[in-house]
Amino acid sequence: MPRVSQEHLDSRRQQILDGARSTFAKFGYEGATVRRLEEATGLSRGAIFHHFRDKDALFLAVASEDASEMVETVAERGLVGVMQDLVAEAKQSETRGWLGTQLEVARRLRTDPEFAEEWGARWETLREASVARLRKQRDLGHLREDVPIEVLAGFLQLFYDGLSRYLATGRDEIELESVLRLVEDSVRKH
Amino acid sequence: MPRVSQEHLDSRRQQILDGARSTFAKFGYEGATVRRLEEATGLSRGAIFHHFRDKDALFLAVASEDASEMVETVAERGLVGVMQDLVAEAKQSETRGWLGTQLEVARRLRTDPEFAEEWGARWETLREASVARLRKQRDLGHLREDVPIEVLAGFLQLFYDGLSRYLATGRDEIELESVLRLVEDSVRKH
Repeated sequence: MPRVSQEHLDSRRQQILDGARSTFAKFGYEGATVRRLEEATGLSRGAIFHHFRDKDALFLAVASEDASEMVETVAERGLVGVMQDLVAEAKQSETRGWLGTQLEVARRLRTDPEFAEEWGARWETLREASVARLRKQRDLGHLREDVPIEVLAGFLQLFYDGLSRYLATGRDEIELESVLRLVEDSVRKH
Repeated sequence: MPRVSQEHLDSRRQQILDGARSTFAKFGYEGATVRRLEEATGLSRGAIFHHFRDKDALFLAVASEDASEMVETVAERGLVGVMQDLVAEAKQSETRGWLGTQLEVARRLRTDPEFAEEWGARWETLREASVARLRKQRDLGHLREDVPIEVLAGFLQLFYDGLSRYLATGRDEIELESVLRLVEDSVRKH
């Protein structure tokens, strides 16, 4: 029996995540059937579910990828930087589709505590990174000092949620770059 | 054949809207089956679909009720006033459920132009009311003058979208009153 290298496993895992992302984006959570996941990944259900416990785990892993990438961006450019990137990426229908699918799980977050906990954990690292970056900005004298950092972080997070929801619907009537400048201005020291 | 009064028709229509709202809230869009709508309204499908063309029309009518109510609030207290009310109402699970169901239609808004147009029409009156109120605030000297009103309106709308998404998930870690004060501060003249 040949030994399977870690590289091979990682690359197989990434192949599944990429296929899953596009399936969730195109068909939504319920619509991402095992058959469609097989077609998109080019792998059998046996291979897919060897790497991921179930569809939830697959969905949460795709979300984790996003969260990890965003944490890096937040360190350098804050949540506003993440939002600028999101606006650029939302020109692609797969991005809009994936954003939309993430909206569909709102009910599960309310009714399924385990799922909510796992989902929350992905975004907790992002929140911590956002708070850390705000502290850095405050130490550099760039941040307004009349509002607690937790409130600034909550404000940015809610705005990110609204932006991502707006982009998911494919609407295009708001001047997003101008609005993001206002968001940045709202947390800055004057 | 007795004449059916307008009052009777209006009261029947409201009975259906109330039952539909709670069914959509509890079960989501797909889960709001005809059987469940009958149970919640206390009426037969014949009666329900005499007043509303189909489930979409019912869903859009419930959304219209919200939009109309919000337009009144916006005139007096702006979109921030609407958000304050939403925070208070979101203590009720039916409100959170209905907010969640509205998130589920993101995909349809992207893929079904007729549905998107009808949905957009409900919120257009709200947007117009928001812009009108911002103009009034500017005339009174309360509004910042370095940012165009359309950008301020877009900012408030995106924030409303994010707040409503956050409340739909039942999360409770952000100090919403403080964040709303920051939102209000962000559009004010200093």
